[in-house]
Amino acid sequence: MLDLDRLTVVLVSPRNPLNIGAAARAMASFGFSQLTVVAPYEPHWREAKSAVGAEDLLQNARCTQSLSEAVAGCTLVLGASSLAHRKPEQLVVPLPTLAPLIQEKLARNGRIAIVFGPEKRGLTRDDLALCHCLVEIPTRPRQPSMNLGQAVAVCLYELAAPRSEASLPHENVPLPGTTAAFRNSPANLDSNSAEPAAAADLDRLAAVIEQTLTAANYSPPIMRSANRHDLNLLLRRLALSRRDARRILGAFRRILWRLRQQTGTD
Amino acid sequence: MLDLDRLTVVLVSPRNPLNIGAAARAMASFGFSQLTVVAPYEPHWREAKSAVGAEDLLQNARCTQSLSEAVAGCTLVLGASSLAHRKPEQLVVPLPTLAPLIQEKLARNGRIAIVFGPEKRGLTRDDLALCHCLVEIPTRPRQPSMNLGQAVAVCLYELAAPRSEASLPHENVPLPGTTAAFRNSPANLDSNSAEPAAAADLDRLAAVIEQTLTAANYSPPIMRSANRHDLNLLLRRLALSRRDARRILGAFRRILWRLRQQTGTD
Repeated sequence: MLDLDRLTVVLVSPRNPLNIGAAARAMASFGFSQLTVVAPYEPHWREAKSAVGAEDLLQNARCTQSLSEAVAGCTLVLGASSLAHRKPEQLVVPLPTLAPLIQEKLARNGRIAIVFGPEKRGLTRDDLALCHCLVEIPTRPRQPSMNLGQAVAVCLYELAAPRSEASLPHENVPLPGTTAAFRNSPANLDSNSAEPAAAADLDRLAAVIEQTLTAANYSPPIMRSANRHDLNLLLRRLALSRRDARRILGAFRRILWRLRQQTGTD
Repeated sequence: MLDLDRLTVVLVSPRNPLNIGAAARAMASFGFSQLTVVAPYEPHWREAKSAVGAEDLLQNARCTQSLSEAVAGCTLVLGASSLAHRKPEQLVVPLPTLAPLIQEKLARNGRIAIVFGPEKRGLTRDDLALCHCLVEIPTRPRQPSMNLGQAVAVCLYELAAPRSEASLPHENVPLPGTTAAFRNSPANLDSNSAEPAAAADLDRLAAVIEQTLTAANYSPPIMRSANRHDLNLLLRRLALSRRDARRILGAFRRILWRLRQQTGTD
């Protein structure tokens, strides 16, 4: 039995409280309990009447100001936004093939976030860059976008639905950003070393790398936002272990310190 | 490819037009076109604003006075009502196992109806008796009932999702931390972006990183050999693409140049 409490549903800037309530209701129906709402539009969203039977879940939901804060503790961040208007910049996993990935990740004590964007526009490019991979609900090209509450219900149904072992390729499927990537690597026979880096580790690392590049005059200020975006994507693509992330962080801190020492800035 | 036009979604006495619209929208998303509404409560249901992108489908929906009239042409009638308050009198099929039944029926030119009851009470005992079998969405006992629009979305997702052997992730799911991970991603169809870094690229990169760390006094000379060893392992573990390796190399070259410029060494 999977511990679904280690999967957090994250709704980014939802506009309509009825959709938040509907998401909460679907979560309760499929056995999920952890909801985080990022920068909601309507202050009284906790009273959404559509959360039939999920009032407690809604009351206990976390509320954060940013997506990076919402997913800080997670080792796998899945973006479930519509891809209709955006060219994806990272791996896209069709929803019907997602369950084995999630199950293995949870079986290894990972923490997962599945992130849904706002109703009309979906996740921004910068929010998408915080995701390890994207989940695609296989909708028709003529009508690709789904109602938010329905998209949440469909995703959670897929993740919670018991399917026969035969249909679950557990063993064979390696995960993006999981320890499986490192399992066969000689450097990672020690299981601790293969613990995946959490989103907060990556954010810390990205911040220090960014400061270092700035201190080295790597690029003009006008390029910084684009560089940070690419850096976010790169760090997630690398599927760093926590230990690797810490070592790299240590090296960059040292370099940054040295750069600043020499220029006399701090 | 299944002919989804031979599957009709039937909504019996829906109370809230928003739910009818949401059902229509989900139908369009998953490729279904035939909607029948039985004895709707609200006369203006065809104008439901929630039918985003499915306005035509809603305009063309059939409307009947009774369920028996709605399903008259069907060879298989599935009841998708909640079973929480009723003891089922016929075969109950869990939704995750339903697709093969449907597919076989459609392959034999059958006509199928999937019937959803009203929001609060579900299908009556008499309506249930018109169903060949019942479909059960595997929800939790503590929160068994679903919102109508969400229930329709979940059922249609299950029926439309490609789950043939060929579509199981074995082959298609990319590896973490490898360039293969990006090769199948739409963002990386450009083969240059996914071409793996060659050993020589990694050696060049390791050399520049090593010089940078030395310039930053990262570690005493006695540690350099051990650090280089770890760095080599790390760079291989990350399975960098050639393009990523070049970008990282560029950044480190800039940092190194800056460090040396400041100390006056070269």
